[in-house]
Order: sequence, then structure tokens, then C-alpha cells
Amino acid sequence: MRPFCDGETTLVILGHKRFLMRLQAGQTQHTHHGLIRHDEIIGQVPGKHLATHLGYPVVVLRPSLHDIIMNIERVSQIVYPKETGYILLKLSVGPGSRIIEGGTGSGALTVAMAHSVRPNGRVYSYEQRDDMLRVASRNLANTALADWAELKQRDIAEGFDERDVDAVFLDVREPWLYLAQVWEALAEGGFFGAVVPTTNQVSDLIAGLEQGHFTDIEVCEILLRGYKPVPARLRPTDRMVGHTGYLVFARRLEKPVPASAEESAGETPDPEVEESHGQDT
Amino acid sequence: MRPFCDGETTLVILGHKRFLMRLQAGQTQHTHHGLIRHDEIIGQVPGKHLATHLGYPVVVLRPSLHDIIMNIERVSQIVYPKETGYILLKLSVGPGSRIIEGGTGSGALTVAMAHSVRPNGRVYSYEQRDDMLRVASRNLANTALADWAELKQRDIAEGFDERDVDAVFLDVREPWLYLAQVWEALAEGGFFGAVVPTTNQVSDLIAGLEQGHFTDIEVCEILLRGYKPVPARLRPTDRMVGHTGYLVFARRLEKPVPASAEESAGETPDPEVEESHGQDT
Amino acid sequence: MRPFCDGETTLVILGHKRFLMRLQAGQTQHTHHGLIRHDEIIGQVPGKHLATHLGYPVVVLRPSLHDIIMNIERVSQIVYPKETGYILLKLSVGPGSRIIEGGTGSGALTVAMAHSVRPNGRVYSYEQRDDMLRVASRNLANTALADWAELKQRDIAEGFDERDVDAVFLDVREPWLYLAQVWEALAEGGFFGAVVPTTNQVSDLIAGLEQGHFTDIEVCEILLRGYKPVPARLRPTDRMVGHTGYLVFARRLEKPVPASAEESAGETPDPEVEESHGQDT
Amino acid sequence: MRPFCDGETTLVILGHKRFLMRLQAGQTQHTHHGLIRHDEIIGQVPGKHLATHLGYPVVVLRPSLHDIIMNIERVSQIVYPKETGYILLKLSVGPGSRIIEGGTGSGALTVAMAHSVRPNGRVYSYEQRDDMLRVASRNLANTALADWAELKQRDIAEGFDERDVDAVFLDVREPWLYLAQVWEALAEGGFFGAVVPTTNQVSDLIAGLEQGHFTDIEVCEILLRGYKPVPARLRPTDRMVGHTGYLVFARRLEKPVPASAEESAGETPDPEVEESHGQDT
Repeated sequence: MRPFCDGETTLVILGHKRFLMRLQAGQTQHTHHGLIRHDEIIGQVPGKHLATHLGYPVVVLRPSLHDIIMNIERVSQIVYPKETGYILLKLSVGPGSRIIEGGTGSGALTVAMAHSVRPNGRVYSYEQRDDMLRVASRNLANTALADWAELKQRDIAEGFDERDVDAVFLDVREPWLYLAQVWEALAEGGFFGAVVPTTNQVSDLIAGLEQGHFTDIEVCEILLRGYKPVPARLRPTDRMVGHTGYLVFARRLEKPVPASAEESAGETPDPEVEESHGQDT
Repeated sequence: MRPFCDGETTLVILGHKRFLMRLQAGQTQHTHHGLIRHDEIIGQVPGKHLATHLGYPVVVLRPSLHDIIMNIERVSQIVYPKETGYILLKLSVGPGSRIIEGGTGSGALTVAMAHSVRPNGRVYSYEQRDDMLRVASRNLANTALADWAELKQRDIAEGFDERDVDAVFLDVREPWLYLAQVWEALAEGGFFGAVVPTTNQVSDLIAGLEQGHFTDIEVCEILLRGYKPVPARLRPTDRMVGHTGYLVFARRLEKPVPASAEESAGETPDPEVEESHGQDT
Repeated sequence: MRPFCDGETTLVILGHKRFLMRLQAGQTQHTHHGLIRHDEIIGQVPGKHLATHLGYPVVVLRPSLHDIIMNIERVSQIVYPKETGYILLKLSVGPGSRIIEGGTGSGALTVAMAHSVRPNGRVYSYEQRDDMLRVASRNLANTALADWAELKQRDIAEGFDERDVDAVFLDVREPWLYLAQVWEALAEGGFFGAVVPTTNQVSDLIAGLEQGHFTDIEVCEILLRGYKPVPARLRPTDRMVGHTGYLVFARRLEKPVPASAEESAGETPDPEVEESHGQDT
Repeated sequence: MRPFCDGETTLVILGHKRFLMRLQAGQTQHTHHGLIRHDEIIGQVPGKHLATHLGYPVVVLRPSLHDIIMNIERVSQIVYPKETGYILLKLSVGPGSRIIEGGTGSGALTVAMAHSVRPNGRVYSYEQRDDMLRVASRNLANTALADWAELKQRDIAEGFDERDVDAVFLDVREPWLYLAQVWEALAEGGFFGAVVPTTNQVSDLIAGLEQGHFTDIEVCEILLRGYKPVPARLRPTDRMVGHTGYLVFARRLEKPVPASAEESAGETPDPEVEESHGQDT
């Protein structure tokens, strides 16, 4: 394992506190248990028993992708790791994927996606607000992932520049307004995902997807429950995050051929209707 | 988007049913709504409006990594996508990662990890049972990911062959028995993760981690709640998965220097103790 | 503890099976582990070690209110105990309470309320459907609670007969249509509660309550997670109930005086608005 | 509905704030939106449109049993309403019940039980600590329920005074130590319940129950998820209570006859073992 170098972002563990710290030669970090001198960390490998100048034990590690997301600089609600990992699987994001993100925000999901599409994939992330783009840009630079994410200041109502992308993910207030643009940008059968905080938005979005030539619609939410890691007194934490957002997924579907479709529609049995009896009583 | 080819695994959506189907020229799939002829799919792009021979609408798609995991051939309990995505983030698995898995099982997590470490990373997966290795091997072959995962038939009590790996994940009955082997194989500060189904195992594992030179121990569980995607009658599904397993994570820590450590230990203030007051009342 | 008597409903525990059984002199119950003769139970106290004619151990107990609700004869979705207990507390149901229930259904909640209002309270339960009233009536008779519940076959759109009741609970499809009738029947400051299965109904109902002179609106859902009671392998059950319904509660509020209200309304600062900033970001 | 009287405890709703307030003639309550004069409330019926001296709207109501529990004076962790209602149903607490509580604490559950057993039942509540008994006593007096609850300062290791009680509920650190005492006090087939915060305690308790002549053991936890009651933006609250405690329930079972029991034990087939295959894989 290569040693820590100047400029690297580290995870510091001091008692029950965990925080990210960027190493800078000559610098000193003040904590409530004494000073941490960056020069004592630079050149060390991770996971060593170090100490503050007051003798309190400190451990310095490379942060996980999870640590990075949770500690990212933010000017907006971010997509949390409990959702991020699931989104990546549902959208099949992996090395080589080409992904559009609508609503960069602070760039937490952008970072996770850029990390996953390396070395030959790319994330195209659209955002209207200046302040958010600046923060997202910094977050990508700090994680050395800027080469795999392209930030674009644009109203997504005007459409996306890319075509045939593998997946589009929207984190905007009214995602149902942009489904035509999403459809245009997606490859045949491509993956759609979105996160919305309210049930009303879920209803509006799935209604839009049904009418907008998408199929395989799924809605879910993910709850993460932490436990206090005490062997003889194991129990969940007293408080937990009760809600971040609902996840909605779908797949792009071919538009029906207009002329003959009408004719056959009257004759085709619809298994959806047939099978749905008794499903929602 | 390239068209479907012979031998490819597809996701078929027929009414409320979703299933994986491997395309084979000349073959026919029987369903309760009529026949699907593979030759009508081969050469088509995903997401087209097709039909059974009885005229029922069918859509054929490329499965997501999520679909593949959920439909994988299995001879054991698998790690489910709701956990998989989170595990990948917590262990920072990405392109280039070198990962050890103890307990291949049916290979569901192996597949997800192999997918994520491409093109230059590698998964080393250990399993004792013949039958499981055969299934896992088939699952890797079917997903064209065999090049990134090395299956080893071995009792992990004997230790791992690799050194300096980025992460080790254990899915075995008594993970606390192998922490010394895990420690040897991990890079300094490396990531440890495990899944266990019972609270007793969680207690045993975190006790082992505390004594085995690990730090930053975290325990959690993840609940996925699905919703019926009906815009005017939005509601969670009546039944859900109540439990799959508890996730435990930690980081490898340097072993303390034996001689002088004892001396200083008596003098060093311990912020853990100090800060824990009132945390577990 | 008095012994079991002829005609009494008992809870039978046979291995992992639990079921309610009404004792009838001379009768025999067939089970997959042999016969249970009712005459061997009548006259015994609960909790004795009995056996089927094949020698399998059987325990016979008096059912709890929880057991009764879970095993009640039903022709409709019932209100489950996980919600029932909470509803009783939120509506302050207790000895002497006078309660209206709109939508008797199978009478599960009616039974729980009748049990709680004894000896001098009363439940007035309205239902339109014949078949449900018959089942609810049987359920009340079987639990010897018929004296505390009055079943009325009526469309609640026509209003309730009672005035100044302590609480009204609605379990109907569109509860927001009957809020004027509820308001008329409730005592000043009285308790309102309802259960609805979809988020759309929740939105409609709370909009109605806001306009219908109610205050202190609360919405929640209750999740019950069972565990397998094995000391050395403690873990939640694999599957659980994911959803039964959303609970909505409110309190009846005086109608504002129409004339002078308009005048003062313009001058009165509204703390709701002021305090709600940043609550729904 | 009878008007508020001097000395009565009320629920005050002022903007998003809700608090209990005891009416005292001549008194004034200071709030951040102005003064509330008690004399303007005494003699009024609940649910009227009142105002602070600055003109902010105030509503005054009779608190529900739920409100009372949530706002009770406390010197200890209390049993919360989400568990209380369920406990009452599982123990079949109702008018006339005779209940023992071990571990009075602040008396929140004592109050709920006393409320439910009126007019002819009784709660016998044991507590060792002076300070807790004083608080519990005040809480019972303030809710006018002291006539139905008898507080006893005693170590429950010495046993309970009562016999043939309908139910015993323990809220103590090591409930498994007192199961013999519980067994002695309970009626045949009587109800046992307990709340414990950790999984280790659950394991110890159910092991004790299995050996201590109890049956029908159940373990569960209850999660309450609140929603922001905004019709057009319905969503769960951002944070929720992640854990209060695990509930354990059981029923008292006759002690087996010692002599002949040994003999027959070897011959009796055990359906528990037979049926448990595949239950905990």
C-alpha cells in the first residue's frame, strides 16, 4: 500500500469522531483532543497507531467511496450512499457506461458514477445553478474524478446533447416534465432512474412514464438502520434517517407505430388488465 | 444500441411477469400467454413492441446488473442487491480493485464485484463446496465476467494466497474465526466487510474485530420497501422482505508495537471511554 | 383462574401452529398430529400439558385480545393489532368512552373498542353491507362483547345519529366525503381517526381536514417486525407485512365566527407560516 | 362536552408547538408568541379559537392518552405509545384486569394500564428507586388514575405479593432473573410481557422463558414512521426514532409432573423439532 502523499484527502478517526482531512505539508489540525501535525502523516501508510500532541490515539485512513459521499461539500440535499449503491445496480452502471445525470446538485452521485464508469465511460451532468456547478466541480477535482464527468450548465427542458446513452438519472423537482428529452437521449431499452422526496411526485412521475413510452416501472425506498457496535449490548441506534427520497426506475420502450397500432389495439388482449385483478384491494 | 445476438441472456417482460431468457436460434419459449420465438428477437434492438403467437404484448430488454443478481442460478442464500450496492460503496470497489471474497456461494456478489473491478481489477473468491463452485462458475460464464474472478476451492482457515488486497468480504457462518487470515491478506488500512444473518453472529464478529486489530467498526441493516406503481393508488406492497442479513464493516489497523505499548497504554487518555457516556442508556 | 367451559373460545398451541377453537362438549378436533377431544379440555384450567390421541403435546389457553383480532372471521381487510393499539391510545378510548366507527367491515376494530369501553361506554358502528354486518355481529357475539357495540346499517353520508361522542374513526374508501357528518357528531375538541391504504387518500383526507375545521393533524404508519425466538440464533423473520394502511388523526375545532373573523384575519399574524420555513426542503 | 376547570391538564396547540399546560386560576403562560391567560381558558369548552395577548391563534384541547404519555414527567426511558398500545392488546389488558408491573420507572405504562383497567381492575407496580416512585406517583395523581395503581417499593427478587394476576410486565435490566417470581404470581395460562433494549437481553430472556415453564414466546419490535401532513407534498419525516426496545411475550405453562414426565418424555414425539426444519436457514 502506497504511503499518504501531500494533497491527499484522508479519513481521520479520533475517538468516536470521524472526519475527512486534506493533507498539506506544514499544516496542523486542531481537535478537542490536541493537535494533529500533517507532516507526521505524510509518508506513512494508512492504519497506523498515531497520536495527537496530547497523546490521544488517532488513526488515519484512505476514505471509502462511502466516506467521500457522506462528507462531500454540499449546497443541496445529496443522494445518500444507501440509495447510491442501489441506483448503480439498477442502472447497471459500470466500467464503460455512458450516463446522463439531470440535476448535478453538489455532485455526490456524479462522483459515485464517475468512479464507477472508469476508465472508458463518461458521466454527462446537467445543472442550471452556478453555485451548485462550482461545488460539484470542486468535489470532482478533490476526488480526482473530473476526467470522467462533464458538467453542463443547461436547462434540461432544452434537451440533452448526447444520444444512445446507457442510462439517464434525474434528481430534479418535476422529472415528469423532461421524459421526452430523456427518451430522445436514451439508447433503445435504456435505463431511467429518478429520486423524488414526496409521494405526489412519485404519482406524477409514474403517470408520465406510463404515457411516455417507458416500461418495467418500479418504485421503492431504502431504509438504513445503524447499530451500536457493542458486542454485549447490541442494539439499533436511537435515531435514524426516516426518509431521503423515493426511487423510481423504468426502461425505455419503442414508440408504437401510429397507423396500424390503432387497429390492432382493439383486438389485442391485455394481460396487464387480466392479471391485475385483486392486486390492489 | 447493438441488436440481440444468439446466446445472449435477455430480460422478458410479459404482463406482470419478468424473467430472464437465454436466446438460442431456433428455440421457442412457452408462456401462459402463448409462444415466444427466439428467432423473432435475435437481431432486434431492445425495447421493441413484440408479441406472443397469441398476440400478447412482450418486451425484451438487456437485464440490469440488478436483474442478473435477482435471477441468478442459486444453491444458497445470496447477497441481495439492496445490500450489494451498499457493500460496493463501503468497500470502495471500483475499476482496478483487488478483492477477496470468502464464501463464494452461488456467486451473486462475485458477479457484482467482477462487473465493478473491470478492466484491470480482480476478485479472488474462496469456497469449499464443489456444488457451489460449479454454480458460481456457470453464473460467471453466463455473465461473461469469468475473466475477472478467480474461484478457489479452499478452506479459508488455511489463509488466503493474496497479499495487499484492497478489501476482503466474508459470507461464512463464523467469520470471526478467520480475522487473522483476513488481516494478513489486507493492505494497510484495507476494507473488511461481512454479512451474517443473526444478532449473535454480529456480537461475536464485532468482539473479534475489536481484538483483532481492526477499527472503524460499523453495523447496519438495509430494508427495501417496494411500492405498487399505480399513480392514483400509490401504496407499498403488502408484503416485503423482513430480513436478509446484518452488514458489518471495519478497517484494518496496524498491530501495536508490543514492548513500549504496554508502558504508554497506562498513561494514555482514552477518548473512547470519555465520549461514550450517555451513548447507550 | 376459572376452568374452561363449554362454548368458550380457546387458543390451541400444537407445535408451531396456533389456532382458535370453540369448545363444544362431545366434539373432536382433527389435526395433523392426531385428535383433540374437547371433553378433555372442558373443566381444565388454561396452560396445562395436554396431548393429542397420538401423544403430541398440546397447550390450550384463553386467547388474548390480540389473538382474537388476528383470528377473527373476516370478509374484508381488517385493522390489525399493530394499528389497533395505537388507535385506541390516540383516540383515548377507555372505560366509558362513546365512539362512532364508520365502516364496520368484519368488526375487528369494533371488538377491540367494545372491549375497551366497558362497562359504561358504547361503540356505534355504521356499515352499509349486509354480509359484513352479519360477520361483525357474529364476531361480537362470539367474544361476548355485543352489549357494548351497536351495529347500524346505514350510508354515513346521511349522517350519524349520535352527538357529542368522544371519538369517530373512519375505515372507508373516501373518508374526506364525510367530514361534515363527523364534525356534527363529535364533541368539542373530539378525536378523529382514519385508516387509508394509499398515499393519494392520505393527501385527500388531510386536505379535507384542513378545510373542515379540524386541527392537530397527524399522519403515520406502523411497522411490526417479528423475530424468530431462538436464543442462539436471534434474527428477524424472513418476510414481514410491508403495509396495511396509513393512520390519520385530528381534533375537532370550533367553526370560526363568520362576520368579524374576516376583519381580524387580515391583522392576525400566522405562526404556522412563519414557523414552517425550512420544514419541507 | 364539559368545560375546562381549574386544575385540569390541557393540551395547548400554538403554531407547530404542542405542549401540556395545567390550568391554574389567575396564572399566565409565557410563550414566544405572547401570553396565554389561564382564566380565559377555564370555563371554555375545548377546541375553541383563542389567541395569545399578541393575537396569535391558540387552541386548547383535552390531551389524549397518547399526549399524556408523550409529555409525562420522566426520570427514565419510558415505554412509548407505539409499544404501549400493542402491549395492552397482547396482554389483553382491559376493564377489570389485575396486572403486575415490574419496574415502574416514570410510570408511563402504569398510567396507560391504570386507564385501561378501570373501574374494577388494578395495577400493582414494583420499583426499587425512591426518585422514580415519586415521579410515578405524581404522574398518576396528575392524571387522576392513582386509585387504580398501587406503587410498591420493593426488589422484585423477593417476589410479588399478588397471586393469580392476569398479566405481568417487566421493564427491568435482567428480566430473566425474575421468571420464577413471575410464574408464581401469574394465573394459569397468564400473560407475560417485557421490553428490553438490546438483542443480547432478548436472547437471555427467551432462553429463560423456554426453561421457566412458559410457552407461545413471541419477539417483535414496532417502528412508527411519521409523515409531514402536507397534502401536495406528502412525505415521511426526515428523522425518526430508530429504536426504543424489543418486546417479548409469553404465556405461563403448567410445570410438568416430575416423576412420570421423565418416562414419557423419551417416548413423546416432538412436533417442534419436526416442524422447525428449514425455518432458520
